[in-house]
Amino acid sequence: MMVFSEHNLMRELHQPGDKIVLLVMDGLGGLPMTPGGLTELEAANTPNLDRMAAEGSIGLSAPVRAGIEPGSGPAHLSLFSYDPLQYEIGRGVLEAMGIGFELGKADLAARGNFATAGPDGAITDRRAGRISTDECVRLVQKLRAATSDALPGYQVFVEPVQDYRFVLVIRGPGLGGELTETDPGVTGQPPLPVTDTSGTAEGEQTAALVNRWVALARETLKDEPKANTLNLRGLAKDPGLPHLTDIYGLRAAAIAVYPMYKGVARLVGMDVVDFTGDRPAHQIDALAQVWERYDFFFVHVKKTDSYGEDGNFDAKAHEIEAVDAVMPRILALNPGCVIVTGDHSTPARLRSHSWHPVPTLLWSPRAMPDTSERFGERACATGGLGIFHATNLLPQAMAHAGRLKRFGA
Amino acid sequence: MMVFSEHNLMRELHQPGDKIVLLVMDGLGGLPMTPGGLTELEAANTPNLDRMAAEGSIGLSAPVRAGIEPGSGPAHLSLFSYDPLQYEIGRGVLEAMGIGFELGKADLAARGNFATAGPDGAITDRRAGRISTDECVRLVQKLRAATSDALPGYQVFVEPVQDYRFVLVIRGPGLGGELTETDPGVTGQPPLPVTDTSGTAEGEQTAALVNRWVALARETLKDEPKANTLNLRGLAKDPGLPHLTDIYGLRAAAIAVYPMYKGVARLVGMDVVDFTGDRPAHQIDALAQVWERYDFFFVHVKKTDSYGEDGNFDAKAHEIEAVDAVMPRILALNPGCVIVTGDHSTPARLRSHSWHPVPTLLWSPRAMPDTSERFGERACATGGLGIFHATNLLPQAMAHAGRLKRFGA
Repeated sequence: MMVFSEHNLMRELHQPGDKIVLLVMDGLGGLPMTPGGLTELEAANTPNLDRMAAEGSIGLSAPVRAGIEPGSGPAHLSLFSYDPLQYEIGRGVLEAMGIGFELGKADLAARGNFATAGPDGAITDRRAGRISTDECVRLVQKLRAATSDALPGYQVFVEPVQDYRFVLVIRGPGLGGELTETDPGVTGQPPLPVTDTSGTAEGEQTAALVNRWVALARETLKDEPKANTLNLRGLAKDPGLPHLTDIYGLRAAAIAVYPMYKGVARLVGMDVVDFTGDRPAHQIDALAQVWERYDFFFVHVKKTDSYGEDGNFDAKAHEIEAVDAVMPRILALNPGCVIVTGDHSTPARLRSHSWHPVPTLLWSPRAMPDTSERFGERACATGGLGIFHATNLLPQAMAHAGRLKRFGA
Repeated sequence: MMVFSEHNLMRELHQPGDKIVLLVMDGLGGLPMTPGGLTELEAANTPNLDRMAAEGSIGLSAPVRAGIEPGSGPAHLSLFSYDPLQYEIGRGVLEAMGIGFELGKADLAARGNFATAGPDGAITDRRAGRISTDECVRLVQKLRAATSDALPGYQVFVEPVQDYRFVLVIRGPGLGGELTETDPGVTGQPPLPVTDTSGTAEGEQTAALVNRWVALARETLKDEPKANTLNLRGLAKDPGLPHLTDIYGLRAAAIAVYPMYKGVARLVGMDVVDFTGDRPAHQIDALAQVWERYDFFFVHVKKTDSYGEDGNFDAKAHEIEAVDAVMPRILALNPGCVIVTGDHSTPARLRSHSWHPVPTLLWSPRAMPDTSERFGERACATGGLGIFHATNLLPQAMAHAGRLKRFGA
């Protein structure tokens, strides 16, 4: 099937224009806690977002496909206009990108978890008692000393991430294949060997190489009180996504606190902005500082999702109010288009990501107003954007920012 | 372009969960009889469906594509998540499946219609005066006696269906091709020969074989007062659809009265439940009896469509009320998701299937409520499900029943 892809259309049509802000409240979508009640977003007092909804268009976005509950990686790819069913990204790549590791195209990356095993080798704690980041750094240094030169012809990098998590990167010739994880996914089972499912010689050699590293690393850790073993997950190479600059002609900046979101932003070619603080207000400080240097700004607010996962309806609603409070500062920068949405829903009632479509607000001086008077799930269900696939958002933002030429005569 | 198909996504993500009921009122969608009036569904008194609409989400489903008026076969395939533009099923296969014939993968099936021809061979009645089923059985026995051993190397099965309809199945080596029908579609014309349009040797041989059977069968019938000839339609083999168990991990049961709906249910791997009676209340008796043995239940109510075809607005509305009355019994079984919809619209005003999108109700304890207070076409047009392709329904039901794992990290 030959399809003239939307990305190629964007490559052909983009032109200079106004600036675009994509503000993502992670896990924004919610549910009423009791029948007939309000959602988190509906319950929050959001005078600024409501005014923007009245002036702009709202709707519901489906991140992956109808009924699919997405992880954060694919959900963000979708917001950046990359269909996650076409572009699959290994967790190891996201983690490496997230901590700012300069991953080469031929490097193999894996997410590592320190874990605890019993005397029979079965995993008793998949997170090694959730050890501290300091402890993680100590263990990583121990692994580096023992394993950095252990694979002749290859460079080995071990990097701490957070708590019990680290990143392993192997650099050298002929790495590839489709590699399985060592984590059995449950306690009471021994770790699994890495195997290759691609059936290629390259994959088989890479699996053998990784297994050698794993054996040596476990030997190094075996007398640790908690982290006496480890598992590897999401072994993959950088899939080499086309960048936003290439597709849309956008110089793009990410203003995010958590490593994984910085990672997925780097994958599509965004610069990651350094800043101090972790509140929405600090993020808008950073936005204002780099405003002149970029065309597109991805602002990622994490805590709406965290509170949803905790089942804390009120805290999630308050975090939404904290975002509402900074909206006038964004508008004061005179953007051509502001999108406020989530990557997926995380209803406090379900204490989990969910498949429900995500409330989305598109504000622009060029927007077609709909009948909405406020920003909330039910209002979005009858909004002027309709119910749409999240990959359609960025082209719409481009249009509203005056950044797309006419198609055809 | 390699696309990871939705069915493969379901294969990867499904997990055990709650039970799903898909209740299809055939031809549910309607139109006002006069400008400004209500549709059949809007006019019906449906307190239970209205309450479920208020608690759940509603919307409009497009069975095939915008503007397409579907037959019942493709419309049901779509509800079962098989795009009918990808999966074409011959009418003969549907009829054979519907009467419970154990169709082999290599068998050729055709729907047969007894008909009346004048002395010049032209068809004067395409349904042989709508002869009774008893008469059909007698004629089928006559055909069996004369034709069962008439094609050396092949087994021939002739089975009565209902009224003037029967099924022909030919079993043996090398059957195939793309075969045309003998029915000229109008009276005053002679029947057509079966021809092959695939251009394959297999197709040409199969067409010749079928034409030999047709000639012998017509010779056998030639002195009958009414059914002195016959036509064959929808000559095809079982396309071998993947089953719901394979794609979704669902043990699926069909509770239907009419053969054709049992047939399409069998094609996708459902067990067909035997039960006594033909009213919605009898179908819910059967549902309750098999509740523990299955995960997914397809309940098919036919008469909404029949009354629509008759132009009987009131009878169609009353049948909808009969379905409304059984809804509390379904909810009392504690399902995780109930979908109430039609396979297509059959407005009494048009006395025919139509292309209008179909009112759809999704009820679940995990549903996102929308602003709807009742179930009807106009309410569905602004419902939280939006206007969607019917193939998206089953993935959504899976999600609401807690049967899908998260996609990606």
